[in-house]
Amino acid sequence: VAPLVSFLSDFGLEDEFVGVCHAVIAGICPEARIIDLGHGIEPQSVTQGARVLAGAMPYVPVGVHLAVVDPGVGSERRAVALATADGRRFVGPDNGLLLPAAEACGGVEAAHAISERRYMLRDVSRTFHGRDVFAPAAAHLAAGVPLDALGPALPPAQLVRPVFPGHTVFGTAVEAAIEHVDRFGNVRLSVMVDDLGDLFEPGRLVEIDTGDDRYYARCAATFADVGAGEFVLFRDSAGAAAVAINRGSAADLIAAGTGHEVRVEFEPRGGDWPLDGDAEE
Amino acid sequence: VAPLVSFLSDFGLEDEFVGVCHAVIAGICPEARIIDLGHGIEPQSVTQGARVLAGAMPYVPVGVHLAVVDPGVGSERRAVALATADGRRFVGPDNGLLLPAAEACGGVEAAHAISERRYMLRDVSRTFHGRDVFAPAAAHLAAGVPLDALGPALPPAQLVRPVFPGHTVFGTAVEAAIEHVDRFGNVRLSVMVDDLGDLFEPGRLVEIDTGDDRYYARCAATFADVGAGEFVLFRDSAGAAAVAINRGSAADLIAAGTGHEVRVEFEPRGGDWPLDGDAEE
Amino acid sequence: VAPLVSFLSDFGLEDEFVGVCHAVIAGICPEARIIDLGHGIEPQSVTQGARVLAGAMPYVPVGVHLAVVDPGVGSERRAVALATADGRRFVGPDNGLLLPAAEACGGVEAAHAISERRYMLRDVSRTFHGRDVFAPAAAHLAAGVPLDALGPALPPAQLVRPVFPGHTVFGTAVEAAIEHVDRFGNVRLSVMVDDLGDLFEPGRLVEIDTGDDRYYARCAATFADVGAGEFVLFRDSAGAAAVAINRGSAADLIAAGTGHEVRVEFEPRGGDWPLDGDAEE
Repeated sequence: VAPLVSFLSDFGLEDEFVGVCHAVIAGICPEARIIDLGHGIEPQSVTQGARVLAGAMPYVPVGVHLAVVDPGVGSERRAVALATADGRRFVGPDNGLLLPAAEACGGVEAAHAISERRYMLRDVSRTFHGRDVFAPAAAHLAAGVPLDALGPALPPAQLVRPVFPGHTVFGTAVEAAIEHVDRFGNVRLSVMVDDLGDLFEPGRLVEIDTGDDRYYARCAATFADVGAGEFVLFRDSAGAAAVAINRGSAADLIAAGTGHEVRVEFEPRGGDWPLDGDAEE
Repeated sequence: VAPLVSFLSDFGLEDEFVGVCHAVIAGICPEARIIDLGHGIEPQSVTQGARVLAGAMPYVPVGVHLAVVDPGVGSERRAVALATADGRRFVGPDNGLLLPAAEACGGVEAAHAISERRYMLRDVSRTFHGRDVFAPAAAHLAAGVPLDALGPALPPAQLVRPVFPGHTVFGTAVEAAIEHVDRFGNVRLSVMVDDLGDLFEPGRLVEIDTGDDRYYARCAATFADVGAGEFVLFRDSAGAAAVAINRGSAADLIAAGTGHEVRVEFEPRGGDWPLDGDAEE
Repeated sequence: VAPLVSFLSDFGLEDEFVGVCHAVIAGICPEARIIDLGHGIEPQSVTQGARVLAGAMPYVPVGVHLAVVDPGVGSERRAVALATADGRRFVGPDNGLLLPAAEACGGVEAAHAISERRYMLRDVSRTFHGRDVFAPAAAHLAAGVPLDALGPALPPAQLVRPVFPGHTVFGTAVEAAIEHVDRFGNVRLSVMVDDLGDLFEPGRLVEIDTGDDRYYARCAATFADVGAGEFVLFRDSAGAAAVAINRGSAADLIAAGTGHEVRVEFEPRGGDWPLDGDAEE
């Protein structure tokens, strides 16, 4: 079977950045099969990239995993390649992008700086290391070059950790940030449903306060559990708490975007809120 | 030759949905070759997806054809796999998405519900069956699993049929809806040129009335048959009647979008309209 | 190793155009490996396509290079296939799209019109030659059909040349156009850094005048050489002069878009401009 290289970035598909990286990989390791995990990470959003990479790994066969979200390109930030306990290789900038995925894959067994010029393109620009440094390194690993040939070993403890937006629980209220809005208008919050404990209970009403507006949603397993046009708070496919509208787009109503803070208030048990089940503003 | 899996969806490419499905397929059937027919179907537009899938099939080699536009995910709608007379396999939700393509490929010879858990991912979410149910089923079929292993047979007559926007002809006028606006600003109407009979005649003038505005176009075989900047009514590459501007974007002028109704009035023969060939508003 | 077909177009990924071309290629040459160099060229922008294709070639293995940006589809413009001195084959419309890339790859050794119907799809539409003419020709070349089987030879000197936006130097000022704005908001000008001669000097201040607004930037090797939020004039990964904001988007501030003319004034040596290094408006 062909060696697999997965590829995640914030390059978008409007420009030729992704295609040129594919070409570079094909030139170094023609037999590699490349799977694009996606290139729509918000420009320079290392935390979003880290979340998506870690969340995707359970579905991706073992291989070389190239990820590039690199606001520090051209600065002193390191380029790194990691090996994990389950046999994967990760390649990307040392800015926190790779670490959550690597830790979810058994943890970092070895980390090396990527510094050997022979495994880079001949001319290395200062603005496009995806093409000149990272894609070549991933392709060489896929072709069988050992990790330690890329550069000196690094203590895994020195790898840069990402700082994620968090959440806070106050009694029956949770403060979190909007972490992502997907194509369907589903609004992911920076809190996992598991972290809500027994606050999250199917059928329970919640008030979502964005500061500008308030919305009422019902906890449920999925959007199909509420009526068409109604708000639901549900566990999304990555395990996060997310707000959706059945057969509609929550983002079309909730004006607040990524990074905005929201407060989710759960109805007290025995529910005294003067609503009877319809989503209302 | 590698087994072929084609893949159409409304997942978009901003998020990781498509990439994760690719990864799932590669994990189950590493030798499969995946061809993305496109992932830009408007969110939850089953009819647009059905049209595009059926229209693409004449160009796609026989294989497994995965399609996911699934507003009913998590509800009781069925997951199905179909075999057609020409040897193809279709996989997707039973909501009308697959049927027109299957009927254009010789008709449905066998239909099976996808219900066997062993051919799904171990954990099946209620919101992302593309990843957890449909991609695995397509991959197993590509790997040689027989259709009837996926679940019980269904009578083909019970499959859900899509309801397309239609058109009506009144003498020299046609009422139809805007079915799609493509990247070049070409506006496809919900009527095939063949259904216009002899109304459509090269050189004939038409008035396109959107309710808000009126535009004049000329029937022609292609946009290059009118001057730069002029409107044309032509048979697009799928056979539908479409409005374009040569070397421009009709959508930049026609404010009405998908779903909007338009009335197309053909100039009476012997043409008495006070226009002399330029597109005018 | 599988024959390689690279593919560049202005088709976008919202519609099924690219996917259908992939399917056509797979039907004719199942063993071909297709690398999408990108499909986000601005609709009908032959010059942007020509720049991107030529700029990508140094990174792309030798193969068949399919490119389609084709505002003249359906008119008398020719379809051509070219062979270059370094062994590549280029396929596309004869409108200037292919020529700069071919000339950067050793020059055109042979050019043939694509006119043999047996190497096209059976039905050739007048609006989608990407699918019906160009993709089939590229696939047949990848499958081993010789270039001269596609149609009669053309004198390379008769191939259409593209007309690029240019630049003019007046002493310490350069007038150029905005050639492209990428996903990161980097603004590429229609002048190469090499063409600026010794005007471009790290640390030197420049004033960028769009007619509507003026911005101050500093010449540097990369955005990381200025402070966060500061403007920089740098050599981008294609060698062009480009304006960026470190850790930000220049396009968010510079309202002018593609095609807009800008004047770049370099600070006289011995610098008397009353600024001390911060980007200011």
